[in-house]
Amino acid sequence: MRNLTLLTDLYQLTMLNGYFEKNVHEDLVVFDMFFRKNACNGGYTIVCGIEQFVDYINNLHFSDDDLEYLKSLNLFSDRFLAFLKDFKFTGDIYSVSEGTIMFPNEPIITVKAPLYQAQLIETALLTIINFQSLIATKASRVCFAAQGDPVFEFGLRRAQGPDAGTYGARAAVIGGCNATANVLAGKLFDIPVVGTHAHSWVQKFDTELDAFQAYADVYPSKCLLLVDTYNVLNSGIPNAIKVFNNLSEKGYKPLGIRLDSGDLKYLSTEAKRMLDDAGFKNLSITASNDLDEYTIASLKSEGAAINSWGVGTKLITSAESPSLGGVYKLAASYKNDILVPKIKISENPEKINNPGYKKVVRIYNKENKAEADLIMLHDEHIDSSKPLSVFHPIYTWKSMIFENYNIRELQQPLFINGKCKHIKKPVLEIRDYVQTELNTLWDAYRRLSNPKDYKIDLSEKLWILKASLLDAKISYK
Amino acid sequence: MRNLTLLTDLYQLTMLNGYFEKNVHEDLVVFDMFFRKNACNGGYTIVCGIEQFVDYINNLHFSDDDLEYLKSLNLFSDRFLAFLKDFKFTGDIYSVSEGTIMFPNEPIITVKAPLYQAQLIETALLTIINFQSLIATKASRVCFAAQGDPVFEFGLRRAQGPDAGTYGARAAVIGGCNATANVLAGKLFDIPVVGTHAHSWVQKFDTELDAFQAYADVYPSKCLLLVDTYNVLNSGIPNAIKVFNNLSEKGYKPLGIRLDSGDLKYLSTEAKRMLDDAGFKNLSITASNDLDEYTIASLKSEGAAINSWGVGTKLITSAESPSLGGVYKLAASYKNDILVPKIKISENPEKINNPGYKKVVRIYNKENKAEADLIMLHDEHIDSSKPLSVFHPIYTWKSMIFENYNIRELQQPLFINGKCKHIKKPVLEIRDYVQTELNTLWDAYRRLSNPKDYKIDLSEKLWILKASLLDAKISYK
Repeated sequence: MRNLTLLTDLYQLTMLNGYFEKNVHEDLVVFDMFFRKNACNGGYTIVCGIEQFVDYINNLHFSDDDLEYLKSLNLFSDRFLAFLKDFKFTGDIYSVSEGTIMFPNEPIITVKAPLYQAQLIETALLTIINFQSLIATKASRVCFAAQGDPVFEFGLRRAQGPDAGTYGARAAVIGGCNATANVLAGKLFDIPVVGTHAHSWVQKFDTELDAFQAYADVYPSKCLLLVDTYNVLNSGIPNAIKVFNNLSEKGYKPLGIRLDSGDLKYLSTEAKRMLDDAGFKNLSITASNDLDEYTIASLKSEGAAINSWGVGTKLITSAESPSLGGVYKLAASYKNDILVPKIKISENPEKINNPGYKKVVRIYNKENKAEADLIMLHDEHIDSSKPLSVFHPIYTWKSMIFENYNIRELQQPLFINGKCKHIKKPVLEIRDYVQTELNTLWDAYRRLSNPKDYKIDLSEKLWILKASLLDAKISYK
Repeated sequence: MRNLTLLTDLYQLTMLNGYFEKNVHEDLVVFDMFFRKNACNGGYTIVCGIEQFVDYINNLHFSDDDLEYLKSLNLFSDRFLAFLKDFKFTGDIYSVSEGTIMFPNEPIITVKAPLYQAQLIETALLTIINFQSLIATKASRVCFAAQGDPVFEFGLRRAQGPDAGTYGARAAVIGGCNATANVLAGKLFDIPVVGTHAHSWVQKFDTELDAFQAYADVYPSKCLLLVDTYNVLNSGIPNAIKVFNNLSEKGYKPLGIRLDSGDLKYLSTEAKRMLDDAGFKNLSITASNDLDEYTIASLKSEGAAINSWGVGTKLITSAESPSLGGVYKLAASYKNDILVPKIKISENPEKINNPGYKKVVRIYNKENKAEADLIMLHDEHIDSSKPLSVFHPIYTWKSMIFENYNIRELQQPLFINGKCKHIKKPVLEIRDYVQTELNTLWDAYRRLSNPKDYKIDLSEKLWILKASLLDAKISYK
C-alpha cells in the first residue's frame, strides 16, 4: 500500500506544529466533510472513494524518509518531529457508506479526533473523495442517458495521470458502467475489463479485409471489428460482413462493430441496415468518439442504431465540470469536555458552514422515494410515529409536514478510537447499492440539465444554533 | 518505483496476442505521439512528463502477479503469457526534451520498436504526457497573466486523485509556478513548498486576535495571516496590524496577508491602504479563491493590490479544458527491411495522420524568435546557408521564404536499442528551460484568448507522400 502521509498541504503541518507549540494539539475537535454544489452541475452526488480513504487512514504514518524531508524544510522543531514519529490515528470517523447519494451541505464524513490528527487528514480525504465522487456521479449520468445500454469506460489515455485513470475506472463502474478498458483497474479492483482492437491493427495489415480476417482468426468467438479506419460504409462494413460470413460458416456468431468517428447517427443506422440485410441482426453496434451524457441523449432521441457506448475523455475527467468542491470544516471543539460549536463567516455567504456535531437523516415516503433530508445535531432524535415538520433553512416560510414516512440515519461508524469498523465490499456490490439509491430518487432530480432541487433542511435546534453564532460573530468584529 | 505495466487498455493486449499468433509481433514499426489541438485552447503546448515516461519504460515488466491476472481473463494463450514474462523494451525512442514548446500535429515522441513493444506502451505514454503537458501549459498561462508576480500551486484537494495532485504540482512548477502546497510533491521532486494556516486555525482559538498572535509566536519570521475568517476590513486587517506591531517591536518583519473570499480587487486595495497607513508597506498580499488566468488578468487590469497568487482547482484540473488530446499513431511499418509509410483516413479529416518516419525542425530568425516549424521525413536535411521555402499543408498557396535563419532539430534520442539515453534534470532547471522556450515566442502566440496560429508546415517530400497515400487509400475502398 502506498504511503500517502505526506499527501497534504504544507499548511496542515505548519498548523500542527503551531498547535503542538501552543499545547492545544490534543484538544478533541469535530470536522465535517461536505460539498456546497452537486457534482456535474446535477441534482445529486454519489459518494465514492470511501475504501481508499480507509486505506489511507489505516496506513497513516511518517516514515524516517518523510521525517528527514520535513526536517530539511527548517520549519519544525525536533521535538515536534519526534512527536510525528509516533503519529497514529486514534479518533472516530463517521461516514455514509460508499455509493450513498448525498446533497449540498450535508456532512458526508465527520471526524471527531484530537486536533492534530483531524487537521492532518483534510487534504488527502478531500483529494480521494472529491475525485471518485465526481466520476461516479458523472458515470451515473452517462448511464442514465444510455437508458440501459451497456456503457464502457475508455478514458485512461486522457485521464489526469495514472491514479485518475485507475481510481476513475473504479468510480465509473460504481456509478453504473459495465466495464473498463483499464487493465490495471481490472486487476486492482476486480472489475470487468473489455477491449478489442485499434486503428493501428487495421493499418498494420496490407488491407482492411486482411486485418479483419486476422482478428477473426484469433478471436472467432469474440469478434468485434472497428470499421472506420478508411471508410465505414464503402469499406469497413462490407469487409466486416465478408469476415462475419466466414465466421458464420465455421459456426461462430460475430459480436458486432465499433464506430469511432463521423456522424454516429447516420453511420450507425446505415451500418445496421447493411448488417441486417446480410443476415446479421442484433449485433452490438458500439460507438465511441468524444461522447458524454448530452451527446448520448441526443443520439438516442435522433434514433441512432447504437446499442453500446464507449465513453472516454469526457467521463474520466468529468470534462464539463472537472472538480467536486468538497470541503472539510471545523464544526466544533471541546473545551474542558464541553462541546463548543464553531462557525466560519465569510465574505461569500454560501461559504458559511453549519456548526456543531451533526448527523443527517433521510426521509422516505411509503413508496421508498426520498422526500427530504434533515441535518440535525448529533443528540437529536426523530420519533417517526409522529408527524415531522421541516422548513427551508434560508426561506424559512417554506415548510412542510410529513405524516407517513420512514427515516434513515445516513452516517455509520468507519473508525472508533482509531479501530477500523469498515467492511470492505466488492465494487460490483457497491454498484448495485448505487442503483438502489438512484431508484429512491424521482427522475426530476436526475434530469441532466436544470434538475429539481432536493430539499435539505436544518432541524430547528441546529437552525437556532447557527443563527445565534452568526449574530455573535457579526457583532464581535 | 511503481509497476505501471498493466496501466494500459485491454485492447493493446488483445492486439499483442493477435500479432503474436499471426507472427508479426516482431515487425519493426514507427509510432508518433502528437496532439491535434493545443492545451488550454491556447497557442502553444509545453511538453511535460518525459521523466515519468522514462521511468515507466525503464520499469516495464510483467510481474508474476500481472501474468496470473491476465491468465484469469481467459483471453490469452499460455504461449503468449510465457512470452510476456520476458518482456523488455528493446527499441528506439526519440523525444523532444522536457519543457519544449510544441504545436499541433508535430511528432513529440517517436517510437521505433518491434510492434508488440511499440503497441503496448501507447496508453501509459499518453496518460503520462497528456496530463503533465496540460498542467505545465496551464501554469504558464496563469504565470503570464500574473505578470511576474509569484504564483503558488494550491490545488491538491481538488486534483483528480493523488497522482494528479502530485505530478500536477511538478508540472505546474515546470510551467512557471514558484512553489506548491503539496508536501509529497516537494519531497518527490525537490520543488519548493509553501503554506501558512487555514480558517480552522482562526476558528480554533477564542478570538481572531488570539489566533493571529499564536501564529506570530510560533512563526515570528514567517508571519503571513489569513484575514477573511470573519470580516476582512473590520476584523482581519485590524487584528493583523496589532499582531504585526507586536512583531515589529520584537524586531521581526511580517510577511503579509492572504485573502480567500469576497471582492478581491476591493478588499486588496483597502487592505493595502490600511497596512500602508499602519506603516506596513510592501507586504505580500496573496489572493486565492477560484482563480485562473482570466480572473488574474482581470484583477490586474482593475488595479487590484495583489502581488502574489495562490491558484488551486482551476490550475490543477485545467478546468476550462481538462484534457490534452494527445494521440499515438502508426506512421510506418518495415516490411522486409523496407519502410512502408502508413496512413489512417477517417470520417473526421482532422484525424488523418502524417505518414512516415519523421522529424521536426524549428526555424528561428536572427533575434531567436521562432518563425515556423517544418515536419519532414527523417532522412531529409536542410542546408541553412540557403533560402528555405515553406508552404501551408492545406492552403498550399500560402508560402514564404526564409533567408536569414537558424534551425534546430527538436527530437533527441531517449532510448536506443532499449538503452536509456535520458539525462535526468532538476525540475527547477526544466522550469528555466521553459522560460527560455517561451522567450522565443512572440506574445501573439501567448495571448490567452484567440492566439495567433503558429506556422506548422510539411516538407514538400512529406506532403507529396501524404497526398499519394490518401489518393491510394481513397481509391481502394
